Amino acid sequence: MVRNILVVGAGKSTSYLLDYFLGKLTEEKLHLTIADLHPENLPDRITENPSCSIITLDIFNNNERRNVIEKADIVVSMLPARFHLKVAEDCLTFGVHLVTASYISPELMALDKKVKEKGLVFMNEIGLDPGIDHMSAMQILDRIRAQGGKILLFESFCGGLVAPESDNNLWNYKFTWNPRNVVIAGQGGAAQFIQEGTYKYIPYHKLFRRTEFFEIEGYGKFEGYANRDSLNYREAYGLQDALTLYRGTMRRVGFSKAWNMFVQLGMTDDSYIIENSEGMSYREFTNLFLPYSPTDSVELKLRHYLKIDQDDIMWGKLLELHLFDAQKTVSLKRGTPAQILQEILEESWTLGDDDKDMIVMYHKFGYEIHGKKQQLDAKMVVIGENRNYTAMAKTVGLPVAIATLLILNGKITKPGVQIPIDSEVYEPILEELKSFNITFNEYSVPYLGYNPNTVAG
Amino acid sequence: MVRNILVVGAGKSTSYLLDYFLGKLTEEKLHLTIADLHPENLPDRITENPSCSIITLDIFNNNERRNVIEKADIVVSMLPARFHLKVAEDCLTFGVHLVTASYISPELMALDKKVKEKGLVFMNEIGLDPGIDHMSAMQILDRIRAQGGKILLFESFCGGLVAPESDNNLWNYKFTWNPRNVVIAGQGGAAQFIQEGTYKYIPYHKLFRRTEFFEIEGYGKFEGYANRDSLNYREAYGLQDALTLYRGTMRRVGFSKAWNMFVQLGMTDDSYIIENSEGMSYREFTNLFLPYSPTDSVELKLRHYLKIDQDDIMWGKLLELHLFDAQKTVSLKRGTPAQILQEILEESWTLGDDDKDMIVMYHKFGYEIHGKKQQLDAKMVVIGENRNYTAMAKTVGLPVAIATLLILNGKITKPGVQIPIDSEVYEPILEELKSFNITFNEYSVPYLGYNPNTVAG
Repeated sequence: MVRNILVVGAGKSTSYLLDYFLGKLTEEKLHLTIADLHPENLPDRITENPSCSIITLDIFNNNERRNVIEKADIVVSMLPARFHLKVAEDCLTFGVHLVTASYISPELMALDKKVKEKGLVFMNEIGLDPGIDHMSAMQILDRIRAQGGKILLFESFCGGLVAPESDNNLWNYKFTWNPRNVVIAGQGGAAQFIQEGTYKYIPYHKLFRRTEFFEIEGYGKFEGYANRDSLNYREAYGLQDALTLYRGTMRRVGFSKAWNMFVQLGMTDDSYIIENSEGMSYREFTNLFLPYSPTDSVELKLRHYLKIDQDDIMWGKLLELHLFDAQKTVSLKRGTPAQILQEILEESWTLGDDDKDMIVMYHKFGYEIHGKKQQLDAKMVVIGENRNYTAMAKTVGLPVAIATLLILNGKITKPGVQIPIDSEVYEPILEELKSFNITFNEYSVPYLGYNPNTVAG
Repeated sequence: MVRNILVVGAGKSTSYLLDYFLGKLTEEKLHLTIADLHPENLPDRITENPSCSIITLDIFNNNERRNVIEKADIVVSMLPARFHLKVAEDCLTFGVHLVTASYISPELMALDKKVKEKGLVFMNEIGLDPGIDHMSAMQILDRIRAQGGKILLFESFCGGLVAPESDNNLWNYKFTWNPRNVVIAGQGGAAQFIQEGTYKYIPYHKLFRRTEFFEIEGYGKFEGYANRDSLNYREAYGLQDALTLYRGTMRRVGFSKAWNMFVQLGMTDDSYIIENSEGMSYREFTNLFLPYSPTDSVELKLRHYLKIDQDDIMWGKLLELHLFDAQKTVSLKRGTPAQILQEILEESWTLGDDDKDMIVMYHKFGYEIHGKKQQLDAKMVVIGENRNYTAMAKTVGLPVAIATLLILNGKITKPGVQIPIDSEVYEPILEELKSFNITFNEYSVPYLGYNPNTVAG
């Protein structure tokens, strides 16, 4: 009996996801339906495959959407997160399982009771971050606790970066996912976390100056800045008693200090519109945020305002982005500062055809076991192949794809709107991910508490 | 025929307002009704006056509110701005004029057509700022334009400060109005203004570092930081063609640089709650915003974080507020950082019984007349008498009171929801304010464009 998998939304990030299903079509007796608003760009190996159907779907067309969902055994929604709810409601109506890589919205969570009553699995947050972070952290946390350990510290950092062989700009950074999320990262409220039992709060304008550092064997040094709420998964992970809870985003060392220049200038602000942005030169854009002074150059005003020397690498980073160029112009009409900055950054930070990206993830677990304190560090690095087969698409798409098949095959059975924190879920997925070279290296290190390097002995 | 004035809301700021009406009761044949939720604290000269009635009024009790408003010829609402609408709707129903010192809300503005149809005057923004600023600026703008001048530059700054004889703390500041507005000043979006034809935007975390300086004869130096939107009254003032539009708040020199420490730390954030604030020491509160380090003192961490030396006056300003005191505790339950900071500041910055406050206002008008560029500076200083008879209560209350009588006596007749920018309104009010020593000194100075002191010749 052929099983129908429906993938809704087939953007560039679905390369590995679709290839995984393609490789299983015969063996697993699958029929793959791909529904997208613009399915024109799908490759021949999909469009010409008799076990695949391609459908042009406007997700807001209720009849069409319901028609395709009704025929599916399981739906994978790769749409932007805000569109999942309509799909989820139809899945509930027609008794179809659902998999997404997105955060669970309150509206989606509200379906939980009905989803359980129908015995359906609505699996979410099963990409990279959220996704592999949940699964790898829970696997180690459960193992430590099974051995009798008590968790004292949990820190978790993840970043989408450019691979060393393609790392050729001063920022050591290129966009590998939604650029908008990078530009507005950290906005919307103070970052909150706990360090050694003490609550800590960092306002947005200090976020990129409160980094900590990491070393990954073979890949050198990284830095991390705090995510907005490190306490979100405290209960889900069973970490109510941990003294340190800290989640963050990884970048190459020096990125955050330089990014902070944009924050200080106000260029990342997304709350108001620059009426006359279209046709404005990059130089004029930069000058919007500097004090008025007709006899000083934009360059000097900026260096003075941010207190940077002209031989500072920070200055080189700004020049590299052409921020003082009077010829290059903004094409956006009525853009916010953040949108305009994004346009400027995309010109410099877009992956080239042969560029490889890199995903890094770093967990720290501090725990006490048999009266002794210990620390375990778990580190993952994944390098992409090219601009279409990115490490990002791989680490997001494969967990989604593997989970989809496990649910279809009755290996994951617990019903409800959920995230992948049960061993029934994470064990088989993490095991299969190893065959794709998505794997963690573990290191036992002395436990010194939070941030021991900056604390006197 | 006796005319009925109803004053709704009789807080401490109404001292001058009520005294003005008391002095006119006989001469103007007035009856004064004061309605307040807690009218117990009104002085004997009001409560025992046969021409005054005191009513305990819950503004949310529709019947009671309508009963008192129906009997009035004019209503003065001194309630917090968000409560004006209910009063305004009743005034419209019963054909009663209305005066407030608050900004016009969109909901209130929506009544404009009906207010005009009934021939009623709903006068708003007729306190100090907004109020005296509108009137004094428009008087000079209209005069310059009547002489054939074309406005190039308009800057306007106002501040509520402590008078020199009561100025005995390092911040040269005490609260003279709603402390909450001081703590959250500048939040909610970037400050926007125009300087010499160029739009400028300052994010909140830079607002207090982009000050400019003023000198007021006999009172020394002041500084000003930008208000959120200097362009709000551009059309109302007829300044569409002005090259520089800048409105701001005045403080004593050094206040903003020190206040910026709170901004940088994140202590002015009003967007999240500190769950365990009750009983927290001032020292613990300060430490919430500093990096974790058990072997360093809160003092050293803060000095390092904000890069201030221990002999810096900035450091003295923090010590003066007891921010490192481990004994003093916060009484607020579940306060936001801003609310907790307010509690700490109120301990140090509340006016003493005999303290005098001071209002300063400073307008700059740059204009071209007969081919020549000129500048006129207009400056006002008002000193209070004591904690009850403050310069703030005087400059807010008297324009409201004077306008009320002018409307009642048919001297102000233009109907509609309005602000005091017509000569029919500002001329008689500014004239009468002179008799209370509320007056501007004018100075003709060379026109050098915006911020000439920091611009090379």
